[in-house]
Amino acid sequence: MDADVIIVGGGIVGLSAARLLAAAGARTVVIERARVGAEASTAAAGMVAPQAETAEDSPLLELALRGRDHHLALAPALEAETGLSVDLACRGLIELAFTGEDLRRLEARRSWQTRRGLAAEALGPAEVRESEPNVNPAVCGGLYIPGDRCVDNVRLVRALAASAVARGASIVTGRPVTGLVVESGVVAGVQAAAEAFRAPVVINAMGAWASQLAGDPLPPPVEPVRGHIVAFDMAPALLRHVVCSPRGYLVPRADGRTLAGSTTERAGFDKIVTAAGLGTVLGIALEIAPILGDVPVADSWVGLRPGTPDGLPVIGPGMLPGLFHAAGLYRNGILMGPLVGEIVAGLVRGLASPVDLAPFSVTRFAAGRPQLVPERVD
Amino acid sequence: MDADVIIVGGGIVGLSAARLLAAAGARTVVIERARVGAEASTAAAGMVAPQAETAEDSPLLELALRGRDHHLALAPALEAETGLSVDLACRGLIELAFTGEDLRRLEARRSWQTRRGLAAEALGPAEVRESEPNVNPAVCGGLYIPGDRCVDNVRLVRALAASAVARGASIVTGRPVTGLVVESGVVAGVQAAAEAFRAPVVINAMGAWASQLAGDPLPPPVEPVRGHIVAFDMAPALLRHVVCSPRGYLVPRADGRTLAGSTTERAGFDKIVTAAGLGTVLGIALEIAPILGDVPVADSWVGLRPGTPDGLPVIGPGMLPGLFHAAGLYRNGILMGPLVGEIVAGLVRGLASPVDLAPFSVTRFAAGRPQLVPERVD
Repeated sequence: MDADVIIVGGGIVGLSAARLLAAAGARTVVIERARVGAEASTAAAGMVAPQAETAEDSPLLELALRGRDHHLALAPALEAETGLSVDLACRGLIELAFTGEDLRRLEARRSWQTRRGLAAEALGPAEVRESEPNVNPAVCGGLYIPGDRCVDNVRLVRALAASAVARGASIVTGRPVTGLVVESGVVAGVQAAAEAFRAPVVINAMGAWASQLAGDPLPPPVEPVRGHIVAFDMAPALLRHVVCSPRGYLVPRADGRTLAGSTTERAGFDKIVTAAGLGTVLGIALEIAPILGDVPVADSWVGLRPGTPDGLPVIGPGMLPGLFHAAGLYRNGILMGPLVGEIVAGLVRGLASPVDLAPFSVTRFAAGRPQLVPERVD
Repeated sequence: MDADVIIVGGGIVGLSAARLLAAAGARTVVIERARVGAEASTAAAGMVAPQAETAEDSPLLELALRGRDHHLALAPALEAETGLSVDLACRGLIELAFTGEDLRRLEARRSWQTRRGLAAEALGPAEVRESEPNVNPAVCGGLYIPGDRCVDNVRLVRALAASAVARGASIVTGRPVTGLVVESGVVAGVQAAAEAFRAPVVINAMGAWASQLAGDPLPPPVEPVRGHIVAFDMAPALLRHVVCSPRGYLVPRADGRTLAGSTTERAGFDKIVTAAGLGTVLGIALEIAPILGDVPVADSWVGLRPGTPDGLPVIGPGMLPGLFHAAGLYRNGILMGPLVGEIVAGLVRGLASPVDLAPFSVTRFAAGRPQLVPERVD
């Protein structure tokens, strides 16, 4: 099958790229090993929380903040286009402190974020409990971040897929891509079992599988990082905001469920829900809101985050002409995925990235290069 | 590309079949020449009106009525599955009479439908205008059919596509299928330009193009029958029900627009909006609701209905092992399309049709056979 662009991976990143490329008139084919959004894109809890999740000195900060802005524009655009709401929450996030050390950490965060012009407001324990009556009475303070929020990532996958298909992208599912087709040193397509799909441009949006595209001379060194999620069944939800502790988070979904997460485990591609993982997440949930102890557990699952050695994504051209990476989004796939898909779609079309991609180049993992982001020496 | 089932045509029929087959575990590929729903599926006004549209003695009646029941079950199922409402209207249809002859026709319809247990209620002119204050004051009576209604067929296409993809169907767009691949007298796939797609089962859901699958020894003799639609821009809508006259209909959409239709023209695959077609539809609209004369015309377009010589669809096995038809739905594609897709998906899986398909067999068009449905002689 011939195309202008092949996108390997039908998660949020790949579907977002497909949607843009199809609209630009490119014959775009998404090839997905299982189903659209089958892995991390639907397993995640849907945090869109750059301020709660990113350190002041992280090279990710600008991309993360822009990723959040992008969601604010994308949600109504997708709804207008597909009729599907992605339930982007309008309420913000509250981070809880249970110790003096927690309070100091929140105050440091509030301080640098306020300095940068980002809204963040210290809450006393009474204010926390007024905003969220169901949190642990042992709370000793909090930080209210009105801009951070959550999105229903399952609905986001559906809306992106509906939009991509409506705009003319092809979506081929149930086809594990095994490797690149390379001719004269240039990308010529991909191989999926016995079948070849031909295109001069291939985007690696393979999530936790991004290292497994044979024929790439320098594949992104992505490894799966397992996370457990527990879904509590209740309607209406017990919380109004996303609520975080230093150990995890609770996310209220529009459908009435509350999701709790998560763990960070190196367990390969094993997707078993373990007693230890479940116990950790239940501990996180009950510390934040002890009332959940009496609430039915509706479901639990694991997701495989695509992690890299330095925790940063791999975005930009690959080491073969025609190859592009949109991989390794680790703990920020929902937050940054739609934007990263659009950025890579832009690169394919010869457009500049709105964000400096130097820290995210796959070349940082070339042999002989340090395995960390190089510091600037001016 | 290999599959278990190839569906040619990404309209409502093909997407509905794909959704069922993918859920049953078949590797299902929809191949669409343009985009999903690019033709009649989105051009239609969305009438789901078997009682207003079908004659008492039509072989279509049972299929049409079941098609309506199917919509009542499908709409909430699709919404639960995809989050996308298809805006299946809850209000019924009012058919208007402007002459004594119109009144006699409506009374005959009311009589046989009531006898069959179908709800249909005669309205005097005052009752019509109480139900729909904006209709023509010259109305002399009407028939209220609470079960007939409309659906937003554009949203229906999106929801079916989202469901099919989520269930694991592949959708390949922008690929005109030119013919069957036949090996040893058995279907082995389809050819799309230089590319072959292999599968032991092929469903022809090609709409107005259904006669153009090379290699089929007895293709459905489908021809395009052009219809004009005019969209009036207003919010809120001026009508609460679907309103018909003997010459056409007005359909209120949930988005506030009102659609008017339609014409019945043999003009090949020409999709030009003509002055004559536009004039006819505007005449229909203004006869039903003269107030529309002052309302902005938002848009106008044509659709190509897939018509057959006897006006009946072609549903069931084709003349090659592995070939199935789901074609020729003519003026009832929105009403019957989702059900017909599911029926053919069932046939592929070896399940019996819930409706007698004998009148819809392609064999009625074999050389030497009369070109009309044979009458039963008991």
